[in-house]
Amino acid sequence: MFPKTIEIKDKRVFMIDQTLIPYELKIVEIKDITDMFQAIKTMVVRGAPAIGVAAAAGMALFIKSLEGTGVNKEIINKAGDYLINSRPTAVNLAWAVEKVQKYCQKFNSLQSLKTKIWIFVKNMAKEDEKINRTIGRNGANLIAGGKKISVATHCNAGSLATVYWGTAIGVIHELFDRGQINMVYADETRPRLQGGKITAWELEQNNIPVTVLTDNMASYIMNRGLIDIIVVGADRIASNGDTANKIGTYSLAISAKYHNIPFYIAAPVSTIDFSIPNGSYINIEERDPEEVTHINGNNILPKGINVVNPAFDVTPAKLITGIITEKGVILSNFISEIKKLTQNSP
Amino acid sequence: MFPKTIEIKDKRVFMIDQTLIPYELKIVEIKDITDMFQAIKTMVVRGAPAIGVAAAAGMALFIKSLEGTGVNKEIINKAGDYLINSRPTAVNLAWAVEKVQKYCQKFNSLQSLKTKIWIFVKNMAKEDEKINRTIGRNGANLIAGGKKISVATHCNAGSLATVYWGTAIGVIHELFDRGQINMVYADETRPRLQGGKITAWELEQNNIPVTVLTDNMASYIMNRGLIDIIVVGADRIASNGDTANKIGTYSLAISAKYHNIPFYIAAPVSTIDFSIPNGSYINIEERDPEEVTHINGNNILPKGINVVNPAFDVTPAKLITGIITEKGVILSNFISEIKKLTQNSP
Repeated sequence: MFPKTIEIKDKRVFMIDQTLIPYELKIVEIKDITDMFQAIKTMVVRGAPAIGVAAAAGMALFIKSLEGTGVNKEIINKAGDYLINSRPTAVNLAWAVEKVQKYCQKFNSLQSLKTKIWIFVKNMAKEDEKINRTIGRNGANLIAGGKKISVATHCNAGSLATVYWGTAIGVIHELFDRGQINMVYADETRPRLQGGKITAWELEQNNIPVTVLTDNMASYIMNRGLIDIIVVGADRIASNGDTANKIGTYSLAISAKYHNIPFYIAAPVSTIDFSIPNGSYINIEERDPEEVTHINGNNILPKGINVVNPAFDVTPAKLITGIITEKGVILSNFISEIKKLTQNSP
Repeated sequence: MFPKTIEIKDKRVFMIDQTLIPYELKIVEIKDITDMFQAIKTMVVRGAPAIGVAAAAGMALFIKSLEGTGVNKEIINKAGDYLINSRPTAVNLAWAVEKVQKYCQKFNSLQSLKTKIWIFVKNMAKEDEKINRTIGRNGANLIAGGKKISVATHCNAGSLATVYWGTAIGVIHELFDRGQINMVYADETRPRLQGGKITAWELEQNNIPVTVLTDNMASYIMNRGLIDIIVVGADRIASNGDTANKIGTYSLAISAKYHNIPFYIAAPVSTIDFSIPNGSYINIEERDPEEVTHINGNNILPKGINVVNPAFDVTPAKLITGIITEKGVILSNFISEIKKLTQNSP
């Protein structure tokens, strides 16, 4: 069976090292909070929902390491803030850490917290999978038609971007299980190639037909009429529906609009940042230039060349056909519909 | 000084091996027509104007190898057809070969042809540089304004895509010489990275400021207001202005339109295929999957994964602001203005 991205067993945390996919499927143990900080920063674990649960597990490891009898809330809050700084764009990271911080407030006995925190984090992981399966069904119900379709996606919003099943790929899984997938077109997604490496690998492992294309080929494939819909994940959604996702999503959305192809975001409600009115408030992470200049450790460009490396871009709501969440699908009136989700947001 | 892409000396043909740029600047001798066929096919030489002159030089090498006293036109035509098949999309290739074939018709003495053909090909090479310098001036005159500008380009339409100076990069050279370049943004241009490898290297050699971005970052950079205009080359222009150029050009043009950024094609008149009414008649070369799955010989994707590799795409005329040629700039009425060029086409 396809392994889970994050596995919690006997108060220990195990994760798939995603930097090695597709070359090797290796499970690594994350031993403490600094390990987890590094794992998130270097993208051993990546994908907004996955790094949320990973950070919560990192908090559990931190609590495990505490000594004494009382619960020092200040030190726990500081540990959380430290983890939140590992990557700036995905809101799920802060969301998950804050959930743990809040949960810890209830405890006075460290011994009791040390036991309960693992149940709490395990439940979060279980909940993530459950949410993804609901997103998958909601998306498939929305898209369902009589015929098989071809779907394009960008980066990896799959099982490996979550604890299990995936968001955008969750929709593809569900469509595939219903016999409705003709072909999945996966953008390779430079610079780190998560589409070519992770999405392609994940789909192949599940026998779902996949074709990899370089990012700049997507418009050509759309123009040839080979793509029926596009579904991607999200790292942060603003209150008006503007969506930050892996760099290149914005280009894809512009081209989808030009070709009149429906463009969907699939993401849990935890990806919505209700505190910001629009995408201009989203901090875009600028990552190491070496991700652009090197592939697998080999320099592919002239030495010392100037590059940029924004990890994300923001797709304005007007280019988005719909947002598929576990609470339903938003197809219009993004601002008021997203507002409604605030009320029953966890 | 920056070397010429193709150098003809003492009836011998020397070219820069562009597959080694930016790692090594190596000049290779092309000894016969099959050498030249391979050099074009494997992209030792690439860029529409450059492969035109390269093919003409290949014809000269073929004529050099002929024995006897008379000129066998049939065998010369066959040799030309063979070379034309090395790559299907760029029209300059067929244009140059046909020019040589036509020139050969005039000769009955092989001895005489063997001398004259080299002068003919050398003149073609000189003419290419002259044309590019005119394109550069025409483009710079068009774009010229009071302030420094930032220009984006795709793939390589530079000195290395021509005999010397370049088409799109010819415009950039001219703007730079006039003190009008702030920054050149070069798409890396997957799969073969000609933007990241060749354009970046070429601009650096000429001290022109350059920043490389992955293809999927261009829209984000446009959205940030960092790009004033876009200039690219062309492999084939149809009678209505539809333009085939390196894969990804179409995406870039769609995004330019969305951001209201002028999008120019810079190309010699020899790139226009007057025989086809629009871009749907252009044969798009599908190249080896290994160009997508491997970089510098290393596999970057899951083994055996299904990929596509169209080398070009067609940008419809409606997305093109203007076509900059050596005969002037076409900004509107593409069909009638292109028709006018037929009359004085060489």
